[in-house]
Amino acid sequence: MDIGFAQEWATVKKGLSTPRVLPTDMIGLLEADPSGEVLRTIVQAVSEEDPRKMTVEGEPVSLPLEEAELFAPLPVPRSFRDFYAFEQHVKTARARRGLDMIPEWYQFPVFYFSNSHSIKGPEADVERPTDTRALDFELEVAFVVGKKGKNIPVEKAQDYIYGLCVLNDWSARDLQREEMKVGLGPAKGKDFATSVGPYLVTLDELEHRRKGDRWDLTMTARVNGKELSRGNAGDLTFSFAQMVERASRDCTLYPGDLVGSGTVGTGCILELGNEVHRWLEPGDEVELEIEELGLLRNRIIVSSENQDG
Amino acid sequence: MDIGFAQEWATVKKGLSTPRVLPTDMIGLLEADPSGEVLRTIVQAVSEEDPRKMTVEGEPVSLPLEEAELFAPLPVPRSFRDFYAFEQHVKTARARRGLDMIPEWYQFPVFYFSNSHSIKGPEADVERPTDTRALDFELEVAFVVGKKGKNIPVEKAQDYIYGLCVLNDWSARDLQREEMKVGLGPAKGKDFATSVGPYLVTLDELEHRRKGDRWDLTMTARVNGKELSRGNAGDLTFSFAQMVERASRDCTLYPGDLVGSGTVGTGCILELGNEVHRWLEPGDEVELEIEELGLLRNRIIVSSENQDG
Repeated sequence: MDIGFAQEWATVKKGLSTPRVLPTDMIGLLEADPSGEVLRTIVQAVSEEDPRKMTVEGEPVSLPLEEAELFAPLPVPRSFRDFYAFEQHVKTARARRGLDMIPEWYQFPVFYFSNSHSIKGPEADVERPTDTRALDFELEVAFVVGKKGKNIPVEKAQDYIYGLCVLNDWSARDLQREEMKVGLGPAKGKDFATSVGPYLVTLDELEHRRKGDRWDLTMTARVNGKELSRGNAGDLTFSFAQMVERASRDCTLYPGDLVGSGTVGTGCILELGNEVHRWLEPGDEVELEIEELGLLRNRIIVSSENQDG
Repeated sequence: MDIGFAQEWATVKKGLSTPRVLPTDMIGLLEADPSGEVLRTIVQAVSEEDPRKMTVEGEPVSLPLEEAELFAPLPVPRSFRDFYAFEQHVKTARARRGLDMIPEWYQFPVFYFSNSHSIKGPEADVERPTDTRALDFELEVAFVVGKKGKNIPVEKAQDYIYGLCVLNDWSARDLQREEMKVGLGPAKGKDFATSVGPYLVTLDELEHRRKGDRWDLTMTARVNGKELSRGNAGDLTFSFAQMVERASRDCTLYPGDLVGSGTVGTGCILELGNEVHRWLEPGDEVELEIEELGLLRNRIIVSSENQDG
């Protein structure tokens, strides 16, 4: 659906009265309508009609999903924080390196900032970085901040979450391992690509899957059609509300900030081990799927170097 | 100087012909005029006149510096990467924790992503985060990327640097220490404030201080008038050009990306030790000064909590 066309159609054809014209880019939309109230009125007005029959100046208001090409719901987030909030993943990944669990991990949810300018959408090709031979996927669930806030207490935090989406935090394990010996990051291990999509699903659409401050959503990952990972968003040790509280402590959050959960247990090759699957190679197809949030599919391709200028 | 007024004045009064009207925000300006050529023509045209006599619709084209209130030259960078590129700082800070130098540090310059939405300008107050009792400054030199590029080789990298500025990477050492035990970051240790300014100085203005791929610029820090730190931007182990090469490897850089050098040797209390200076407290005034780049002064204040909404 094109939001601008839908609003125009609903105004002209159904006499819908809305307080303002919504912007058609995602960050503008979040800022203009943080509660999603105006958007829901428009969707309601057009949902009763046959999509084929709604046009504005000859252009269709909406397309059937199978005819649409989807891009990342948030092509350039305001920022990108990634948490590390599934206990099983942290435990297993550390055990593989001969490391015990860290007591501090249980005290508060930790995150790092990553690159908000390398977002890929569904079906986009992802270049394997030139210098890695250990490319991995990471199966994560993400949320998008819907309104500005600072020092948000956990009890109010859910009001700041606009919606959820699937996130693949592509990782070059050899680059990550090398740079993190110096005690910072990850940065180059993660900065080349992050996939999000296929949609951003608003919380009202997920109410039937909510259990307190968690959402019961099965998460799976497949490489070339073979299932490698299976987990559930409800297993998060720290809730999204706790992440909002942590991130906003003495720091302002803005509409369009993207926040990843960290990898779900079994949700990457690093954790599974190379005896289960080799690192990713050009030609591989990676599918991450989360119930209600859709299927995020990308194909790995070789890197195209020398793109300066 | 107001760039818009200056361009209008020079066009009307001096018959200056420029290829386009420059935007008045910094990222727009970088995108419209990455080489700074149009800007230099305008500055040239107005520099011959008495500032008091140049007006556009009754508004002055420029103010004497002492009458102007300066804000951060880049209030919201596209992104913020911070390197760790002065050997003395890394060596001393590690030695204080009983750690040897890491061989990997010499192989390539490492960085982490930090928060691009907490930028403070010169003379701005900086809130001490609610949960820290170990607030520190970090004396750094930064550069701003002037044009888009990917896989930029070191030989071409200088063309992507628009200018330099002073940067204070405020750090909450207790929060940083805690979160980094988990092996990520820093994030909460740094996300509350980063000061930049007072100006962004373009490279052509610094040509007389250039030595190969370094700039010979003395860097000093004072707390409440007492000098604590003294170093030189020319002592960088990795050049800005090497940082551009590293950051752009398989990753696109954009105009308005902000890149910090890391702390210069002696450039923070962590490195000097609390026997030299206690952690910062509300009321303290921190002055960072770099030759040719100006004086960046901020005062610490108590945190104002409960700013949600």
